[in-house]
Amino acid sequence: MTVLILTAEQDVTADMVVAKLHERGVPMVRLDPADLPGKAVLSADYAHGDFDGYLSVNGHVLSMGGLRSVWVRRPGEPAAHAAEPSPWLTAETRQALFGMLYSASTRWMNHPRRAEQARHKPWQLRVAHSSGFAVPPTIITTAPRVAQQFVEEYRDVVVKSASGPPPGELPAALPTTLIGPGADFSGIAAGPALLQQYIPKRADIRLTGIGSRLFAARKAAVPGQIDGRFGDTGHGWEITAVPDRIARAVHDYLVYTGLAYAAFDFAEDEDGVWWFLEGNQGGQFGFIELETGQPIAEEVALWLSQRRPELRIAGGH
Amino acid sequence: MTVLILTAEQDVTADMVVAKLHERGVPMVRLDPADLPGKAVLSADYAHGDFDGYLSVNGHVLSMGGLRSVWVRRPGEPAAHAAEPSPWLTAETRQALFGMLYSASTRWMNHPRRAEQARHKPWQLRVAHSSGFAVPPTIITTAPRVAQQFVEEYRDVVVKSASGPPPGELPAALPTTLIGPGADFSGIAAGPALLQQYIPKRADIRLTGIGSRLFAARKAAVPGQIDGRFGDTGHGWEITAVPDRIARAVHDYLVYTGLAYAAFDFAEDEDGVWWFLEGNQGGQFGFIELETGQPIAEEVALWLSQRRPELRIAGGH
Repeated sequence: MTVLILTAEQDVTADMVVAKLHERGVPMVRLDPADLPGKAVLSADYAHGDFDGYLSVNGHVLSMGGLRSVWVRRPGEPAAHAAEPSPWLTAETRQALFGMLYSASTRWMNHPRRAEQARHKPWQLRVAHSSGFAVPPTIITTAPRVAQQFVEEYRDVVVKSASGPPPGELPAALPTTLIGPGADFSGIAAGPALLQQYIPKRADIRLTGIGSRLFAARKAAVPGQIDGRFGDTGHGWEITAVPDRIARAVHDYLVYTGLAYAAFDFAEDEDGVWWFLEGNQGGQFGFIELETGQPIAEEVALWLSQRRPELRIAGGH
Repeated sequence: MTVLILTAEQDVTADMVVAKLHERGVPMVRLDPADLPGKAVLSADYAHGDFDGYLSVNGHVLSMGGLRSVWVRRPGEPAAHAAEPSPWLTAETRQALFGMLYSASTRWMNHPRRAEQARHKPWQLRVAHSSGFAVPPTIITTAPRVAQQFVEEYRDVVVKSASGPPPGELPAALPTTLIGPGADFSGIAAGPALLQQYIPKRADIRLTGIGSRLFAARKAAVPGQIDGRFGDTGHGWEITAVPDRIARAVHDYLVYTGLAYAAFDFAEDEDGVWWFLEGNQGGQFGFIELETGQPIAEEVALWLSQRRPELRIAGGH
């Protein structure tokens, strides 16, 4: 039973997990979908009353019947490295690869449909609230008057992107910014804004959830600092305990979203309350592991190498 | 309780359903996501311990608490009609709109995540087979030798696209074509091919499934005709009965895929067996209704106007 890792060639985080799988002696195939077709060969057979299929990568043949789990880490676009790439070739290759993988009875970290759904931040806030997290008051609106009222009610408000940074900028290029009631909200009519009450915090929390295993790390904040991801606070990440309420909420969140892996960001306020800021199904964990020594890569490898099959075989996603 | 129809302005099929909803006196809002922001205003509020939101379209205000169902018919790209459209504005607007709709407790025809999954043709074949349909032997491969062997085994084979027609061509521009063992398969190494045993047919079948209601129509084939969608056969669509085995299989397929609506294409062979060719979650029904008089638009309207809530409120998709 083999683990399939879908990721680009340069991926240090994947390397960490690959090393752990090697230590455990778990067979593993690593594929960048960009290399298909070309370095990799695929065949799926719906011919003899049942389904079978295989992937061949660098001489390793992976049969769909022998597929233990799929880790969708940081895959390239299918057929991106083809001699004559085209949107249509990408679409056909994506269909061929993922259509075959979806047909297999395997465990996913994370299933692409689950991941895609979980990327919707408004839905995420709704699920977080239902799961029992404390969620800062938030609105998403194209109505300037509604934005104005929100800022008047909550005073200190941050504006965020709902979909991530604008294209062409670095992923980390859009820090969360603080606005006040004097701001000009007329531009909101031209594009939706996500506004959230600013939580004055004494620490940032990063919690990594892998199945039922949780790893939490805490970094003390500099007073008045808005976005802990930017700039040096003079503090490092340290291991911290997970409050019971948070552990239950993470469990419900993962069950509800169907995710096997998620990295959560919280703001810890002066009373010690952890406020839910974001659940990132593809969040990094390498920097936390390096700073705290928490065995996150090993836990990912353990999850991927389990033989426990999915109860739902292929549908329902 | 209001029905929301997401579709472009020009959509005759939607017009048919809108007329039926009017007849039933069911409140309805029609929105092209391309008109958001602009003609439409959106606000979602995650502020007061629970979720609320509204859409305002042409003076009609639709509250998320009063949302009965969503019909994802043929929506334009979010923000496509904006004064300054951009991929980022589209991404933000999609997040705002669908994130809000996913947060509501509503019924979907079809939920975008379910629809996206169901578009994967290889997975579709697998689900069709599991559901009890007769599925023609099929392979999807980038290995020329495997393709050659398949054609030698099944003799008459058709090649199809897995993802749909190539871009820039008309949607109907890629007819299914017949190939023989003498063909050159070397090009398959550069791009995956979907090969399927050719089923000599005496008729095409189009079956429309809406919840538990099925409408089947039959069009007699011209001997030797490969693709019934192209050219005039001299025969029209006529109402036909649904065999029990097919009704059970459609039920299982819809439950398994989570689709509320799907249009199925079958080839009826000389023995009367219906061979599953395709299940299209967004398939047209207007032409069938016009030729056969089957009340499909009315059934869609009925499904959308039911007050029965989803058992799963927002998650699991």
